[in-house]
Amino acid sequence: MKGPTRLAILGATGSIGRQALEVVAAHADRLRVTRTGHRGDDLVALATADDVDLVLVATPGMAGLDATLAALEAGKRVALANKEVLVVGGHLIRALSGGAGERLRPVDSEHCALWQCLAGVGMADVARVTLTASGGAFRDTPLSEMAGVTPKSALRHPTWQMGPKVTVDSATLVNKGYEVIETHWLYGLPYDRIDVVIHPESVVHALVELVDGSVIAQLAEPDMRLPIQYALLWDHASGPARRLDLSRALDLRFRGAPDPERYPCLDVVLATARGRDRRALIGLSAADEIAVERFLAGDLPFNGIADVLRRGAELVGGPAGGDPPSLPEIHTIDRAVRLALSDAAVATG
Amino acid sequence: MKGPTRLAILGATGSIGRQALEVVAAHADRLRVTRTGHRGDDLVALATADDVDLVLVATPGMAGLDATLAALEAGKRVALANKEVLVVGGHLIRALSGGAGERLRPVDSEHCALWQCLAGVGMADVARVTLTASGGAFRDTPLSEMAGVTPKSALRHPTWQMGPKVTVDSATLVNKGYEVIETHWLYGLPYDRIDVVIHPESVVHALVELVDGSVIAQLAEPDMRLPIQYALLWDHASGPARRLDLSRALDLRFRGAPDPERYPCLDVVLATARGRDRRALIGLSAADEIAVERFLAGDLPFNGIADVLRRGAELVGGPAGGDPPSLPEIHTIDRAVRLALSDAAVATG
Repeated sequence: MKGPTRLAILGATGSIGRQALEVVAAHADRLRVTRTGHRGDDLVALATADDVDLVLVATPGMAGLDATLAALEAGKRVALANKEVLVVGGHLIRALSGGAGERLRPVDSEHCALWQCLAGVGMADVARVTLTASGGAFRDTPLSEMAGVTPKSALRHPTWQMGPKVTVDSATLVNKGYEVIETHWLYGLPYDRIDVVIHPESVVHALVELVDGSVIAQLAEPDMRLPIQYALLWDHASGPARRLDLSRALDLRFRGAPDPERYPCLDVVLATARGRDRRALIGLSAADEIAVERFLAGDLPFNGIADVLRRGAELVGGPAGGDPPSLPEIHTIDRAVRLALSDAAVATG
Repeated sequence: MKGPTRLAILGATGSIGRQALEVVAAHADRLRVTRTGHRGDDLVALATADDVDLVLVATPGMAGLDATLAALEAGKRVALANKEVLVVGGHLIRALSGGAGERLRPVDSEHCALWQCLAGVGMADVARVTLTASGGAFRDTPLSEMAGVTPKSALRHPTWQMGPKVTVDSATLVNKGYEVIETHWLYGLPYDRIDVVIHPESVVHALVELVDGSVIAQLAEPDMRLPIQYALLWDHASGPARRLDLSRALDLRFRGAPDPERYPCLDVVLATARGRDRRALIGLSAADEIAVERFLAGDLPFNGIADVLRRGAELVGGPAGGDPPSLPEIHTIDRAVRLALSDAAVATG
C-alpha cells in the first residue's frame, strides 16, 4: 500500500506555510510533513532529502530558487508558491519540468485556476488567457494621494491575507506582472496572449478564451487553502476551503486593464519581461525586494518603487539576446544589483 | 481525404436553423447541408438518409423525437436543439447514446457550457452543476402586474433572440426546468445536484462546482452561433460568434434561485421531473405546447399557464414506478393529453 505523500515545507512559518499545515491536518491520511525549513536553513538539503516526495516552496524572494531546481533535479515533485523563482529562473525551471503539471504544481490561485481551465482544452485552441487582479490596497485611492500612502495602508489588501512582500507587490501590481511571467513559463504562452484585468472581488481567478470565443473560467472564494490543497493532493478532494455560495446575491465586476498611471510598476515589469535580455528581470526582482523593504521601513515613498525597479533592470548590462543566464550567473547578477542599489541608497540617504 | 460533414437540418426555417446556416456558410470546407426539413416533412426519412452524417434537430416541441431516435439508431451523430425530445424521451435517448458526447451533441448554450466545463473533470469530482437563467421577459415586472402581461411583452426576451415557444418558456422558466431535465439525461446527474440561479446578463451559461469547492464556468456573449458551431464542428475553430470583450467594464450579477412566486411553472416542471412516474412529464410537455399556443392567441392569461401544466401532468395516470414508457406509449400519452386539454378548453371556453 502506498503511504501518505511525504512533504517538505520551505517557508513553514509564512502565510502559505501555515495554511499548508491546515490542509495537511485535514488530510492526515494522504499527507505527512517530514521536513520544514525557512530562509536560514539549508533549503537544498531539505528539498532533496530521501524522506521527501513533494516540496512546497513557500519562501519569499530569491531564497527558493536553488532548492526548487535541486528538488526537480532530484526527481521530487514541487508545489511552487514562490513567484520570484519563475521570474528569475523560469527558463531553468521549464527545462527541468516542462512547465506546469504533476511534477511542477502551481500554488498561486491564478495559475491553479489556469491549470483547471486548461485541463479539458488543447493549447492550440487557446486564443488568450486573462489573469484577474483585485487592484490591491490602492485601487480606489485618488491618484493625487498615491504619493503619501503609508506602509500600514499598503498592507491592508482588500481580498487576500498574505505576507508583507506579496501584499505590497499586490498594491503595486508587481505581483500581477510576476504572475504574467509565471504564466509564460508554466504554460508556454507568449506575452502578447496573456492579459490582466481588474476584478475587485477576486472570485474569478483566471479565464481562458478559446479560438471560437468560448471562455472557460475558474471561480472560488479567495481562500489560498484551495490552490494549496490542489497542489498538494493533485486532485479535487473535499477540504477546508470556503465555498462560493451561488444561492446568495453575488456581483462580479470586471474593470478592464489596469490604469498605467495608477500602476506604473506593472508596465515596468512587463516591458522588462518582453525585453530582449532575460538578465534584466533578475535585476528588477532584486530591486523589488529592496524597494519593498525600504518602503515598509519608511525609507521610500510608494510612488518611488517603480523607479527602483527600472534602475534594477537597467543595472544589468548583459549582451542583448545572449545565452540565458545559468544559476551561478543569476546569483552573481542578483548580488551585484543588491549591492549597487544599497550603495545608491547610502549615497542618496 | 475526408470530405465535409453532411448535415441534415430539421427545423431549417426556425431561429436555430437559420443561425446554423450562417455557421455552415462560415465553414463551407467542413460542413455541407444535404437535407433540410421542417415539421410537415418526413423527418425520420431525412434524419436517416444515406447522405447524412450529422442531424441537427431544431424543430420545436415533440416533432423531433422520432427523428432523433431514428438518427441515433441509424448510427448518425445528432446535434440536439430540441428540449422536449429529452424531456419526454430522455431515457430512450440516453440508452441509445450514453448521454452527451460526440454522438449526441447538446446545442443549448447551457449544455454546451456544461460539456466544456466538464471536459477536464471526472464526474466523481462534481459536487453540483448550476444552470443560469436570465429570468426572461418578466424578471423585473411587479408581481401584481403578472396577471395582465401580454403575449407581445412575453416575446421580448432580455438577452436572447429565439422562436416564440422557447421565448414564452423562458418567461415562465419552463425552459429552464426542461434544461434541468436535459442536464439529468445528458450528464447522468441526479436532480438534487442540478441548481438554477438567476443571472440577468446571460454571459455565464453554466457552472460546475467540484468537490473541493473549485468552480469551473463557461462564459460567452449570448450568441447561439457559438454552441451551434461547437455542436456541428465538435471543436473550437474560429467562427462568426460575437466575442466577450474583457477589456471593457463588465458586471456579472447572480441573484440566487428563482422566486417560486414569480416562476411557479419552474416548480411544477421540477416537481414533475422528480416524481415517481416518468409519464407525467409527457403530459406536462404536451400541456405546455397547448398552454403557450393559447397564451399567444390571447386565450389564456400568463399566470394561468402553471395550472395547465399541472393538469397535463395529473392527467397521466400510469402506475407509479412502472416501466419507462416506450416510444409508441409516449405518443399515445401525448395525444391523449392534447385531446383532453382541448376538450377542457372547449368545455370551459
